[in-house]
Amino acid sequence: MKPANALIAHGGGPTAVINASLAGLVEECRRQPNVSMLYGAEFGLRGVLEEKWISLLGRDPELIRSIGESPGSALGSSRLKLEDPDYERVLDVFQRNNIRCFFYTGGNGSMDTALRLAQCAGASDYELQVIGIPKTIDNDLAVTDHTPGYASTAHFFAAAARDVGEDNRSLPSPISVLEVLGRNAGWVAAATSIARKHEDDAPHLIYFPERPISLDQMAADVEQVYRRLGRAVVAVCEGQLDDTGRTFGAEVDRPESSVHRLASNLGHTLARLLSAKLGVRARAEKPGLLGRCCGPFATGVDRREAFDCGRAAAIAAVEGRTGVMVAIQRDSNDPYRSSTFLTALENVARLERLLPLEWIAPAGNDILPAFTEYAAPLIGGLTGYPRL
Amino acid sequence: MKPANALIAHGGGPTAVINASLAGLVEECRRQPNVSMLYGAEFGLRGVLEEKWISLLGRDPELIRSIGESPGSALGSSRLKLEDPDYERVLDVFQRNNIRCFFYTGGNGSMDTALRLAQCAGASDYELQVIGIPKTIDNDLAVTDHTPGYASTAHFFAAAARDVGEDNRSLPSPISVLEVLGRNAGWVAAATSIARKHEDDAPHLIYFPERPISLDQMAADVEQVYRRLGRAVVAVCEGQLDDTGRTFGAEVDRPESSVHRLASNLGHTLARLLSAKLGVRARAEKPGLLGRCCGPFATGVDRREAFDCGRAAAIAAVEGRTGVMVAIQRDSNDPYRSSTFLTALENVARLERLLPLEWIAPAGNDILPAFTEYAAPLIGGLTGYPRL
Repeated sequence: MKPANALIAHGGGPTAVINASLAGLVEECRRQPNVSMLYGAEFGLRGVLEEKWISLLGRDPELIRSIGESPGSALGSSRLKLEDPDYERVLDVFQRNNIRCFFYTGGNGSMDTALRLAQCAGASDYELQVIGIPKTIDNDLAVTDHTPGYASTAHFFAAAARDVGEDNRSLPSPISVLEVLGRNAGWVAAATSIARKHEDDAPHLIYFPERPISLDQMAADVEQVYRRLGRAVVAVCEGQLDDTGRTFGAEVDRPESSVHRLASNLGHTLARLLSAKLGVRARAEKPGLLGRCCGPFATGVDRREAFDCGRAAAIAAVEGRTGVMVAIQRDSNDPYRSSTFLTALENVARLERLLPLEWIAPAGNDILPAFTEYAAPLIGGLTGYPRL
Repeated sequence: MKPANALIAHGGGPTAVINASLAGLVEECRRQPNVSMLYGAEFGLRGVLEEKWISLLGRDPELIRSIGESPGSALGSSRLKLEDPDYERVLDVFQRNNIRCFFYTGGNGSMDTALRLAQCAGASDYELQVIGIPKTIDNDLAVTDHTPGYASTAHFFAAAARDVGEDNRSLPSPISVLEVLGRNAGWVAAATSIARKHEDDAPHLIYFPERPISLDQMAADVEQVYRRLGRAVVAVCEGQLDDTGRTFGAEVDRPESSVHRLASNLGHTLARLLSAKLGVRARAEKPGLLGRCCGPFATGVDRREAFDCGRAAAIAAVEGRTGVMVAIQRDSNDPYRSSTFLTALENVARLERLLPLEWIAPAGNDILPAFTEYAAPLIGGLTGYPRL
């Protein structure tokens, strides 16, 4: 890397640890004499196009450190998708400001944008390094063992399932539906199993977007649990579809979007349908976005890895790399250890890594121990409660 | 108190610290030679009537201690209401088992049951001590400064409003409705204000069941905030009613109940209505019961006070008291200190203490500093996040 200016932007939904990646990047760039300036774009690509950014290297290191421990995106983010002409506009902005390195934090959609920007710069002979930093609670990026942001959200929903389950056990209530984040991938839904300790601990049923299910089948599953225990706690993703590919009749938010098309009241809808089918009361809880930006549930592993990904991006820049994303490799499970490596943006752009189907129980309503082995080291020592 | 058997039962919804009261009671009863046996009724009055209970004094003190630190009700609870003939049945059960002291943990409905049981025993010349232990996340019991369980739920929703707000600030989204626990009283809704630090921190609007509001007024409030900030986070109780005393068209759960009549999808309904009225997107989060049984959010003050209430109940029994409930008195705010005292069940039975109207902002959409002064010492040092 020649002495040059760099810019960081965030894409997509915030997480509990995206600021840790920012802090890692800033801290490492500060050490690197060839990074003249590091700008932070306000509200993602919107800030890039409008040249709204702030200088980061001169900020009080103590402030950066404490922001690195806070959830949400201190820079702000955006879901703006670049249209073809926008790529040229971005390059114009970069040229005017001598920005030679662009860091982009996001998921597989953001990595696609990064890839196209790198290709566009190549075609225009504009010398630009593009480096991706992984971020998504969905854990659906390819190549990387897992994504920064996932473990904290998994931790939140594991605790949520445990505590809603404890409430349900204390004052038995027939059907309790816990709606969980996740559009196409069931990684977060699977995590609701982590704190189970006793045979009758919640959730008693977990459904996965990877396995569409008919209402009849779900009702039969629930009835079986209810007959056995007098109650049933069901974890289901907001993106769960029925066997006809529909949202069980739930209202669809943003029906115009091909990507963010989601039911906005799936848990409630299922509670109402199951209640009518089985003739017992049902209710739903929907922590929703609270599970994405959950400060108190950020795990130490997640925060450290997010920070490391930011640092690794700075080092990759100094080493002259471009067209790459930082990824995480699991070096050991016990004790848990991980490191970072680089992968080509082509390997991750637009690719969605779903939960392996062989980790889902054959009946499609629970997760198998292979998942626990994978996820428990990331989520940490979350256990169930003692009983009299 | 002559040497006799005692029984403890829980009534109503569990909390994050109801087990701490149980632990305090067990620990103190163990020290008292006149308590021959302490039974714990399984699933509240249901367990009493069916004589399903377990002996508590012989249990491993370490198990009792760790249960005391767990949310939910280890004994189980019930919403069973006693009909007139049931009171005699309960006394029969007590007589058969030489139970001379009944501890009942609950809210104002449970204290009414306790009072009627004491009166019934008096009328039947059955020597029985009845002692209430306060418990409710609603904080709506009279006489006591606050109720065990409230601070932990207030803590949960204060953090939820902060974190949903941080998400909304990171990736601005027009309208975000956070549905909060609370049927008739706005104590929990008010607590969503506690972590606000910057002028534009969420929630931007808070509504209270004590102040019914028209949809038009709410929409006007939201529009004003949205125009100023480009976003609006609204905290509203599940029990909020409009100016005609209706649930804004939301579905009513248990329409047959006079006490537990509640909208089951109020947040979602309001999001949809506000979206239609203002022509911008809106979504709702409903952590629901997760805010009631929230292990990780139990506050130290709440747990200690719940424990102390259990101990105080045991001491009251040994001192021969009956027809009383343990209450909390605030001795000092800085440093926070409290102690317990006894009040007659007549002073609390069926009485609902609402949020003082003079603590609500005149416009009915925010809370005034008098509440913060009251609640902050209970909830502890929850603050907002730093900004770049």
